[in-house]
Parts: sequence; structure tokens; C-alpha cells
Amino acid sequence: MSGLGEFELIDALVARLESPPDGLGIGDDAAAWRPTPGAMVVATTDMLVEGIHFRLDWTSPRDLGWKALAVSLSDLAAMGARPGRGLVSVALLPDQSELVAELYEGIGELARQTGTSIVGGDTVRSPGPLIVNVALLGEADPNRLLRRDGACPGDVLVLTGPVGASAAGLDLLMRDDREALARPEAAALLGAHHRPVPQLAAGAALAAMGLRCAIDVSDGVVSEAWHLARASGVAIEIDADRLPLAPEAVALLGEERVQDLALSGGEDYQLLFAVPAARLSEVAAALRSMGAPARDPAGVGRVIGRVTGARAGGDVTLLRSGRRIDLVAGGYTAF
Amino acid sequence: MSGLGEFELIDALVARLESPPDGLGIGDDAAAWRPTPGAMVVATTDMLVEGIHFRLDWTSPRDLGWKALAVSLSDLAAMGARPGRGLVSVALLPDQSELVAELYEGIGELARQTGTSIVGGDTVRSPGPLIVNVALLGEADPNRLLRRDGACPGDVLVLTGPVGASAAGLDLLMRDDREALARPEAAALLGAHHRPVPQLAAGAALAAMGLRCAIDVSDGVVSEAWHLARASGVAIEIDADRLPLAPEAVALLGEERVQDLALSGGEDYQLLFAVPAARLSEVAAALRSMGAPARDPAGVGRVIGRVTGARAGGDVTLLRSGRRIDLVAGGYTAF
Repeated sequence: MSGLGEFELIDALVARLESPPDGLGIGDDAAAWRPTPGAMVVATTDMLVEGIHFRLDWTSPRDLGWKALAVSLSDLAAMGARPGRGLVSVALLPDQSELVAELYEGIGELARQTGTSIVGGDTVRSPGPLIVNVALLGEADPNRLLRRDGACPGDVLVLTGPVGASAAGLDLLMRDDREALARPEAAALLGAHHRPVPQLAAGAALAAMGLRCAIDVSDGVVSEAWHLARASGVAIEIDADRLPLAPEAVALLGEERVQDLALSGGEDYQLLFAVPAARLSEVAAALRSMGAPARDPAGVGRVIGRVTGARAGGDVTLLRSGRRIDLVAGGYTAF
Repeated sequence: MSGLGEFELIDALVARLESPPDGLGIGDDAAAWRPTPGAMVVATTDMLVEGIHFRLDWTSPRDLGWKALAVSLSDLAAMGARPGRGLVSVALLPDQSELVAELYEGIGELARQTGTSIVGGDTVRSPGPLIVNVALLGEADPNRLLRRDGACPGDVLVLTGPVGASAAGLDLLMRDDREALARPEAAALLGAHHRPVPQLAAGAALAAMGLRCAIDVSDGVVSEAWHLARASGVAIEIDADRLPLAPEAVALLGEERVQDLALSGGEDYQLLFAVPAARLSEVAAALRSMGAPARDPAGVGRVIGRVTGARAGGDVTLLRSGRRIDLVAGGYTAF
């Protein structure tokens, strides 16, 4: 496919996607559709850069397409929003037409599974690196948004599922740990890293139950707790020893290392949400009934911390192995 | 500002923008707002790559920000849509924080002038080149969209204003023509190249009059005519000698050269639209009453071609200096 002109490349890419169910899709100056009456429009964007967010010797183009869409879908999940329509921009080298067609297949695969229509984009030549930007539009019910500023004193903090798998997979790749990579558990970790699953159903369920506060775990549990604490003006205490760690990661790297990775590594794309303590069992049961994570049911609805009080500017304290660590704003670097 | 952390950089960038009038803006996992009841959502995206679409030794960061937003606003104009909300993604080198702050000032300047709110984005580190992606959401009245597939036999093709200025400005820069660059007309050409003005009012007026078909001139008149011909399934004849050429460009480069540039150069961001011949005077009067282009009133509503008949797959013929040139699909390269 290299050497295709602009028209041919775009035609080839569009062939990997399904047309939107209604409205105007790819082929005009802009896409257009009628939003659901009464719904809010929810919008997010994420840019992935080769060499910074991914390496083409570690990731297949198809997985990269999946992930580029997944990270934005995860933002919608964290708002309690439904997908949606996407706009995909790609900056590629002249000889990467075939690679980008595979990338679109990965986008199309996750788009079909989640009811997302790709309705536009921009495909431009670049001297490199490969860059993929997804802008994603969803819908949510007004007054049913999960926001970062909705955490209140008395809330407990809960994860929708296990953490640490993606960062553990990346860790194996970065250290080129061939012995560990050859073990059967490695596949789950690499899968979590390359094909994260946005928690759309969980986000929708939390919003429908009237919860107010969630965020997706893209940058590690501590960093996300900081976002919630800062936006909500509260002090948060995280109990590291209660983190639901991905068992495959613990099997390969040990509990302490995976705890580090879960706290600061990120890319789990689970949701971290706040819920009044009195509603915890109801919410955990609802999440379990969705049967979401087959691999670690124990991780669903696991309390990992609590909001200890109001605090202008936010505050995060980490409890770990009996020690209390007061963190500086922005995150936690264990190594 | 170089060396700022993620939080500080985002705070500094957001300070250059106005908050949206309602809904949720920057600071959560996604932006959210209530669309106007009954309106369609219109969405477009454009990616600009350093070295391909701009050069930092020719363009100030502020002008680059303006242009990055302008090219997407022009897509909304070509649909007859109103802005809108924008999502801005930037891939920047570690030492470009200050540059990106200026870029955001240019985005903010045009955003304020056009009623656009920047509600989200992504700012990521990259080994380079600098890349700016704007995803833009607007609104339009259903059944009042200007589409590429709306041209009919009997329509004439009209430009909203003069063409050739931007490509002429770029031509001076590429040839490093210092004599021409020192002449007073050059400022207008460089201004047209660096700070294109999206024809939002004209697009809205055309849509309100019930016209069906328009496109913005981003890639040269011939290429845009091809898009209309292909989407509408019609044959189009363009009379090159009737193009309203930017007078400053003609003064510096001569008529024949500017005609070439207008046909194949692009980035004028005027609208090329189709109108039934019987409605031409009404439409031209409406455009003139908007008083849009002060520099060349003669260019407003100038007929530059016509739809000669139905033709599956489209066809474009160019009349130039008494010759009839049947073009191959995709464009016209004069040099």
C-alpha cells in the first residue's frame, strides 16, 4: 500500500471501519449527527507518540490502534459516559501506509465492540515519530456525571478491578527479561499493556447508581488519588496493602514490586471511584453482578482508601507496611 | 517556563484560555456540555506537523496557534456550522513549554473572536517534530448542512472571496525572495498565509439561505472542485480566468503565476459553493451585505464555474486562456 495517494489511503482506511448508524461520517468537511435529546455531549482526546508512549518493536500496529482508542474510551468510562463517535488523526512516515491500515483494523475492532463510530480524522505525512491522536465524543445523562471533584469526607475509595498488570508487562519489556517473558503469566501482562479494556460498563453502572466521583487509573493509583484530592479539596488516605494486585504480575515479580508498579506505574485503566461508606456493599454487588473481571473477582469493589476530611488543595497519605507516608503533590515514585 | 511539571504546564496553558460558558471544561477526565436542543453536532479534526505544514523559522508560535484553530473552524464554516468547543493536542519537545504557551495565546485569540471554547486537550512530550492537533465541535441546524454531495446540474460555482494570497505568501518564503518580501504587499500575503480567516459568517449565511453544497479551499480550487464533483456525481467546469485573485499577490507575482497558485496552492480558506443560477444575485447580495472581505469586494460572489451535468465518479474540466483542459482525478499541478 505504500505509495498510495491521499484518496486511496483514506479509502483503504475507511474500509477498515463501519459507517456510523446515522448522520454524516467520513467524506465531508466534517462529521455531523443528532445527539440524543436531553443528553450531554462528553469529549476527550489523547495523543500517543512513538518512543514515548509506545514502541513499534514491542507493539503490533493492530494493538496500537486498539490502545489508542481504549485510552480515550477509558476517559468516557471515568465520566460514566457512553461512546460515541471518534476522530482519528495519524502522523505517519511515507512508508507506513500499510502499518496505518493495520492500526485502523485495531481501532475498528474495539470500535465495533464498544459501539463507537469513527466519523472523521486526518492522515498526514511526517518525518516521524508515528503519532496517533484520538478525539472521542460520547453522551451522558445530565446530573449523572462522574467527576473528579465529587469526593466527600466519609467516602471510601474503591477500584473496579486489579491493578499492576500493565506496568508489570512494560517492566518485563523494558528489562528484556526473557526468562519471565517465556512464562505463561507473561501473556496476561503483555495483553493488559497492549490491549487495555476500558471499564465502560462499570462507569455506566456507577453513574446510574448516582455516584458522583471517579477517575481512570492511567498514571498510577497515587497520581489519580492526587487528582481526586486536588479537584475535590479533600485529604485522601490510600492503603497500599489493600491494592488488588494482578496475580500474574505477583507471580512473576513479587508482591512488593507489583505494589510499587500499581502505585506509580499506571495504564491499568481501571476506575478509582469514591462512594459513601454506607453504600459500599450495594455498589460492590452491582459491580460483581456485571461479572466484569473474570481473572480476579476479589479485585472488584475492593476498598483501597478513604477520604479523611476536607483539605484545600488536596492531600494524599500512603499507608504501606505499617508506615505512613505523606506524599508531595503529583505522585509517588518508588524507584 | 521550560522544566515545568505536567500540572504547572497545563495550568499555564489553561490561563491563556477562557472557561466555557457552561458545562465542564479542562480539569476532568473529559469535557461535557448540553448541546442546543434540536441541533446537530458537527465535528472535525486537523493535524499540523512541523516541517510539513509549518516551519518555526517562518511562523510565530502565536500565529501557529491561530492557524491550527482556523483550519478546523474553516471546516465548520464549510458545513454552515457554528463553533463550538475545541480539544487541542500538542506533541512538544521538553524545551518548548514557552513556545507552546505562546501557541495557546494564538489559539485563545481566535477562540475568543469566534465564540469557541477550548474544553480539553492533551500535552505530551515528543522527540519532535512539533505537532498540533485540533478537534473541533460545532452545531448546525438539521436540514441546513452544507455538504460536498449537494451540487446539481444547473448550479454555478462561486467563491466567497479572493484566492491565491496564502500560496503566494508561502511562495515568497520558499524562494526567500527578499526583494518581494520587502514590498508593502508582502505583509498581506504573509498575513493570509499565517493567519487565515475562517469564513464562518458566510457559511452560516449560505446555510440559512437553504443552499446545499460548499467546501473550504484548503488544497487549491481544482482539488476542491474535484471533491465536490466526486461526492455529488457531477461534471464541473472551472473558468480559471474568472478566479478572483488577491490583488497583492498579482502585484508581486503576476496574474498567470497567481492563477497557478490559486488553482493548486490552497490554504485560502474561502468557501467554494454551488448555487442554482437563478438564486445567484440574491446570494451574492447577501454575502456582500455582510461586508466580509474589505480588500477585494469584487471577489465576493464571483462565479468561477458551473455544473455541466451528472457524471458518476465526477469530472472536472478547466478552461484557461481559451484552452479546455480535462483534468485527472485529484488535482492540478501547474508546475
